[in-house]
Amino acid sequence: MALVVQKYGGSSVADAEKIRRVARRVVECYKKGNQVVVVVSAMGDTTDELISKAREVTENPPDREMDMLLATGEQQSIALLAMAIQALGYPVISLTGPQAGILTDNVHTKAKILEVSSDRLLKELGEGKIVIVAGFQGITMDNEITTLGRGGSDTTAVAIAAALKADVCEIFTDVDGVFTADPRLVPSARKLSRISYDEMLELASLGALVLQPRAVEFAKQYHVRLHVRSSFNYNEGTIVEEVSDMEKEMVVSGVAHDLNVAKITVFDVPDRPGIACRLFSALARESINVDMIVQSQMRNEINNISFTIGKDDLRKAVGIIERIKGEIGASGFSYDDSVAKVSIVGAGMITNPGVAARMFEALAEEDINIQMISTSEIKVSCIIDAQEIQKAVLALHKKFGLEAKEKDNQATA
Amino acid sequence: MALVVQKYGGSSVADAEKIRRVARRVVECYKKGNQVVVVVSAMGDTTDELISKAREVTENPPDREMDMLLATGEQQSIALLAMAIQALGYPVISLTGPQAGILTDNVHTKAKILEVSSDRLLKELGEGKIVIVAGFQGITMDNEITTLGRGGSDTTAVAIAAALKADVCEIFTDVDGVFTADPRLVPSARKLSRISYDEMLELASLGALVLQPRAVEFAKQYHVRLHVRSSFNYNEGTIVEEVSDMEKEMVVSGVAHDLNVAKITVFDVPDRPGIACRLFSALARESINVDMIVQSQMRNEINNISFTIGKDDLRKAVGIIERIKGEIGASGFSYDDSVAKVSIVGAGMITNPGVAARMFEALAEEDINIQMISTSEIKVSCIIDAQEIQKAVLALHKKFGLEAKEKDNQATA
Repeated sequence: MALVVQKYGGSSVADAEKIRRVARRVVECYKKGNQVVVVVSAMGDTTDELISKAREVTENPPDREMDMLLATGEQQSIALLAMAIQALGYPVISLTGPQAGILTDNVHTKAKILEVSSDRLLKELGEGKIVIVAGFQGITMDNEITTLGRGGSDTTAVAIAAALKADVCEIFTDVDGVFTADPRLVPSARKLSRISYDEMLELASLGALVLQPRAVEFAKQYHVRLHVRSSFNYNEGTIVEEVSDMEKEMVVSGVAHDLNVAKITVFDVPDRPGIACRLFSALARESINVDMIVQSQMRNEINNISFTIGKDDLRKAVGIIERIKGEIGASGFSYDDSVAKVSIVGAGMITNPGVAARMFEALAEEDINIQMISTSEIKVSCIIDAQEIQKAVLALHKKFGLEAKEKDNQATA
Repeated sequence: MALVVQKYGGSSVADAEKIRRVARRVVECYKKGNQVVVVVSAMGDTTDELISKAREVTENPPDREMDMLLATGEQQSIALLAMAIQALGYPVISLTGPQAGILTDNVHTKAKILEVSSDRLLKELGEGKIVIVAGFQGITMDNEITTLGRGGSDTTAVAIAAALKADVCEIFTDVDGVFTADPRLVPSARKLSRISYDEMLELASLGALVLQPRAVEFAKQYHVRLHVRSSFNYNEGTIVEEVSDMEKEMVVSGVAHDLNVAKITVFDVPDRPGIACRLFSALARESINVDMIVQSQMRNEINNISFTIGKDDLRKAVGIIERIKGEIGASGFSYDDSVAKVSIVGAGMITNPGVAARMFEALAEEDINIQMISTSEIKVSCIIDAQEIQKAVLALHKKFGLEAKEKDNQATA
């Protein structure tokens, strides 16, 4: 008997028929003698519809009330999934994030899980029940409802898997696993049978949307074995786990891209200590995640600072910079939300010099202009014009021979 | 400075524009220096839509999961209303039933409020905030989400008004107040400026749908002054409060009708002690409210028992009777959901003999057959064919001269 945590995304529970299909799949796992905890997201486009409703009422809904509103989406799907499983004749109970003991900090709309108080989960599992938990939501010490931000259900699933020491956390999605690139852009993209947490982390952060980065971090920290797989078939997906250095034979394991990027450039900032700090702490105070940062020296002691954020945060960020630009001595700023990020990721990159150069070469061959560059030990990212993203991903996928590498990868799995 | 509890029904918050209108009305009350707690129902048809979603998934959704699902409706409206008030620039916070301390028993879908723990409400009011509370929902001692049944938001509002010792509990609805009969059926129906709790209780139970009976009971018990009024205008509505006997001058103050009635007749039940008890306890165990009961002796020691329930419960009741009919020795049963209840209500009835006879006379004059009769100190109800309901209400409204009585009523107010 194993303890399995399963997570189904919004597209897997988009309507009554799909909910019944998920119910059958959950029951199959339970009938094999496993203890099963299921984390679900809101049905289909529910979250977006709720956001639209809020915007109909006011342009700037307060985050606390936004959480109050959004948390209802997952609460609906857990109730409906529990009904479907009960209709199949199996013992089941749904729990909201608060009921499941998902304790978070109080940063509304982007809360972080502090702890999972698993008493209730263990009690229900102990009574032989399938437990359905609302993803994406939690509760603060002050009994306030919070949400974890986009893709937060992954984090809920991994946090529960960690708290319960689950044998595996299965992330069901609408694709077969983690691919060397987005198959919608690159027809020759291949499924990876296995990938390390670090690689997955970079891929996740870089817009390969199968898993939320925070979920992967959590999984890495608590050694939760993830299985990313399709809810539409029974194919083995991609296992995400610790991979020893010996096995890191692929230089580049995937090409990721992200269209949810906006670029802001602040002009003529004096080159004095504390200026960048003031800028980025102002953004951080409003919970805006800054991704890439490039500072370029224009002339003596005057810099331009460019950085990227998620498109959702652009409006808020522009407001902040408008407010503090005088204080930091900037002459002005510009922003552009028609950019995209393309990245190559691979744990083997660290021991293979020249990878970044080959990336720039591939982009140059396609006449693609690079606006910003950022590198880590296992990835290189470039900001380019959003319109060129498909061309860029295809070129990089080919340049690093990813079509051919899946066999090697399977051999190590 | 007064403490005002306002309750807005689903039709008052059906869309963004209506929510903004309610927000303005709430703010008007707050700007006069009042402390304001607002209880809201789910937007428009949300509850019905959620019930349909559940039925798409399964024919018989478990009550506990139904509550989990339905509670989301009110949670959405409180968030949206709080956003609208915040957009007007006033301090506001929304609270779910659980957050507002609405403690209930564990009878899912029909829970009763046991207590309001008002700490959180008092804290938020103390900070000068307008407090928006989700109606219709609560939480059990075991942290389970419950709902109070149809119209439960009225009860939430009155319970909060009682707990906070509010000066008035304003029930906003889509009609101007309590009428001598349903104005849609009786064009000459008149608004009552004042009515006693007991009369309102009978009217409410009898299908004059402006207020939930349990809410009126609660109001009577805790001396909460109710003001039933329109959310579409500023007219004075109907005040519901204790009326001294001296003032009970109207024999009949209103004609109520109820189309949500199903009649069940159980045939040939042995006339032995405990039989009726067994039948009605079986129904009570499933939380089915039985309204009228008539037992008729057919021949020696064999009775027919007829009773009425809400249409929603018919399917469940039929299942129960099917199961226990052998046990209670019945030869069979029939049911009919094309019946309706018409009632006359008046606190003065108790001292005026012959009122029931005049009612039967009025119905006979219209050739309306009476299937069941039930009486209390201040009302007489008859079950008739649903198709004849309008004719019956019009005839009774005329018979008891209700068109002319409003003046008297206003004089006492």
